[in-house]
Amino acid sequence: MAVDYVYRLEQPHRRGMLARVCATIAEAGGLIGDVVTVKVGRDRSIRDVSIEVRDHGAAKTVAGSLGLLEGVRVISFYDRSMAAHEGGKLAVSARRSMRTLQDMRDVYTPGVARVCSAIAEQPSLANRYTMIGRTIAIATNGTRVLGLGNIGAVASMPVMEGKAMFYDQMAGISAMPILIDTEDPDQFVETVLRIAPTFGAIHLEDIRVPDCFEIEARLIEALDIPVMHDDVHGTGVAALAAALVACDVVGLAIGAATVGQVGLGAAGFGIASMMVAAGAKTVLASDPDPNSHPRAIAAGMQIAPFDEVMARSDVVVLTTGVPGLVRPEQVKPGSVVMALTNPEPEITPSDAEAAGAAFGADGTMVNNVLGFPGIFRGALSVGARQISTPMKLAAARAIAGLTEASELVPDALDPAVHATVAEAVAVAACEAGLDRPQRVPAGL
Amino acid sequence: MAVDYVYRLEQPHRRGMLARVCATIAEAGGLIGDVVTVKVGRDRSIRDVSIEVRDHGAAKTVAGSLGLLEGVRVISFYDRSMAAHEGGKLAVSARRSMRTLQDMRDVYTPGVARVCSAIAEQPSLANRYTMIGRTIAIATNGTRVLGLGNIGAVASMPVMEGKAMFYDQMAGISAMPILIDTEDPDQFVETVLRIAPTFGAIHLEDIRVPDCFEIEARLIEALDIPVMHDDVHGTGVAALAAALVACDVVGLAIGAATVGQVGLGAAGFGIASMMVAAGAKTVLASDPDPNSHPRAIAAGMQIAPFDEVMARSDVVVLTTGVPGLVRPEQVKPGSVVMALTNPEPEITPSDAEAAGAAFGADGTMVNNVLGFPGIFRGALSVGARQISTPMKLAAARAIAGLTEASELVPDALDPAVHATVAEAVAVAACEAGLDRPQRVPAGL
Repeated sequence: MAVDYVYRLEQPHRRGMLARVCATIAEAGGLIGDVVTVKVGRDRSIRDVSIEVRDHGAAKTVAGSLGLLEGVRVISFYDRSMAAHEGGKLAVSARRSMRTLQDMRDVYTPGVARVCSAIAEQPSLANRYTMIGRTIAIATNGTRVLGLGNIGAVASMPVMEGKAMFYDQMAGISAMPILIDTEDPDQFVETVLRIAPTFGAIHLEDIRVPDCFEIEARLIEALDIPVMHDDVHGTGVAALAAALVACDVVGLAIGAATVGQVGLGAAGFGIASMMVAAGAKTVLASDPDPNSHPRAIAAGMQIAPFDEVMARSDVVVLTTGVPGLVRPEQVKPGSVVMALTNPEPEITPSDAEAAGAAFGADGTMVNNVLGFPGIFRGALSVGARQISTPMKLAAARAIAGLTEASELVPDALDPAVHATVAEAVAVAACEAGLDRPQRVPAGL
Repeated sequence: MAVDYVYRLEQPHRRGMLARVCATIAEAGGLIGDVVTVKVGRDRSIRDVSIEVRDHGAAKTVAGSLGLLEGVRVISFYDRSMAAHEGGKLAVSARRSMRTLQDMRDVYTPGVARVCSAIAEQPSLANRYTMIGRTIAIATNGTRVLGLGNIGAVASMPVMEGKAMFYDQMAGISAMPILIDTEDPDQFVETVLRIAPTFGAIHLEDIRVPDCFEIEARLIEALDIPVMHDDVHGTGVAALAAALVACDVVGLAIGAATVGQVGLGAAGFGIASMMVAAGAKTVLASDPDPNSHPRAIAAGMQIAPFDEVMARSDVVVLTTGVPGLVRPEQVKPGSVVMALTNPEPEITPSDAEAAGAAFGADGTMVNNVLGFPGIFRGALSVGARQISTPMKLAAARAIAGLTEASELVPDALDPAVHATVAEAVAVAACEAGLDRPQRVPAGL
């Protein structure tokens, strides 16, 4: 997998110098990202150049080539991502400072006892006077982490911290990773139930199939706060949003379309379920694992062989984990082909379009970061008891509606996008009567 | 219990005005705290005056009296503590901003996968590349909250958030409250064990006796990270520190002293245990509950009747919850009497001294906030596997050593105090070989 390095380079500060540096990097196999000027002296400058390279060996090769350039000195180079993770990515901190005796009296002894007593008398006040109502658990056992498989809870922590960063920066929500040391679904459910009073909602993450379905269903049943497995539903929402945009581009109505889903893992099942919810005429699904079929049928899909799914579907979504699975002749002319396996898709967008597809997309165009911050923010903001299908549909439509022409999805780093999604989800929750006004946290 | 209110007052800006306001407040029964000037106009000023009143009714009386003062207008008044808790006191947030594509590549996809893989290969790297090594769980079931009793986990949340504020502000540690919805010690232990991989240490809080002893012992046995019940040991450390200072003031050596402990609840047992650890010649203990006796004897104390404890002890500590328990004639001449029940002690310091004590102290002079931030910081900073008795003793001695003349304990809001405690604890851990250098978190 590609690695981003940053190279701190000292070089003569004169016209044409950076061009030579860039040419050298390209020749050595690097793809240039950000160039940040650290310092400009009278005749020398220092710049941090971020470069995507194939692997750690290639990073050294690039450094070697740069070092041979006349006048250029490689001061240091390091793996950006490892450096960015030093000491972890999250902090739990006080929302106000505590410096004076009065501060302590207000937030600790003796004042805190009044707040505790008030909550003991009227439990719904916890939402107003504690962090609970704007805090989410990101719960995982690390049994299925992105492309890494079952690496266990601790090794999955950087992913959980990353999700929490989005919650903080895009939605103003406090999200705490909770690593649960068990592969047993019963124990997982039991543990989440016992600590659930700490949180306003539960985000499940990176739990293997089929455990994730059972765990989510049981937690939704047992708790009256939102519970959502992001790998299923967040991905489903983001993919539906992209599909809605793609259909719009090619002039296809989902309601009149046959939609195909190849691969019924967590993401595939979630996507196909959203297609059913969005009103697709027919949703065909294929997966070599027969255990996945009853769940798909129960969710309104029809099981069909892979070839038939490809041949019949106006919109086909692939989440198989098999790069290059789709041969050009399997592409239905005029269809929308979303081959989402990362980093290498089942068929590249350009190959799909060359083979006759009206629209080709890959995993880079479907980012589930678009979904979860706004979905949970919207649900929390109205004290929703659950995250219903109409709320997820509202999120997908909001995301699709925000997409600029020529793009398949909006910018995941734009807080306004998440605010719009949150608003749509909150409205959908209220329309369905799922909101609880008294639970609204003050100034979430 | 007393309540702090803040009154926003508009008044003529002229000499003598504030004196009249203060006199009125005193007459109405209020005790003035901070006075903050919000605005000064040409001839009128606005000030926020914090006032400690008996209860909510008294707060209204004060407002009424102030409103009757010529020229004075009460713009608003409210309970400071309730206001300070609006929306909760903690936030989980990103330690760096995520605004650009490169930021996302560094902390999320694709860079995060490298960090996960590195940890999967070498688990000890989790301490360096995740938040785990500088994060503590504050775990409670709310079965014994300060003076409030068994109010349940949710109502105890403001206390847990308050503790976490101290961790953040005094020790730079991320502490996350974890509310555990069970009164069963087995389930409590099981739950903490399952989520323990998330944390570098476990702070137990407000768990009832005797469950707290069993829960702590089992967690210490099962985990190789620090576990400490603050109500027992944090209080023990703070009280020992105060006792050391008091003994120093009156020229008494703990090693030559008979120490008495009246009340063997969580705090009392913790204090007496620290007295034993500090080398007191004899530690006498009394408690009406015989179930508390075997634990005390096992910890090196001798059980004696209350009267005998009072009559024989050179230093006596009372944690009975019974205001006014000690009659003047029971005070041993020349002794140190620490009557720690809040808000009304077993005997006031002035009454104790009037009855012949060499030194009287009450609960306001023993603040366990002095202990836990530095103790856990010190333990985490060297990757200690546990919090041993020598580490707690080192903390108590460090606190005592920092105390200014005429005070019994140092200022809990001074970060330098906590840094000194942390250093002492870290040194003690290393001396005992309890440290694990590879677990040291980078820049805790």
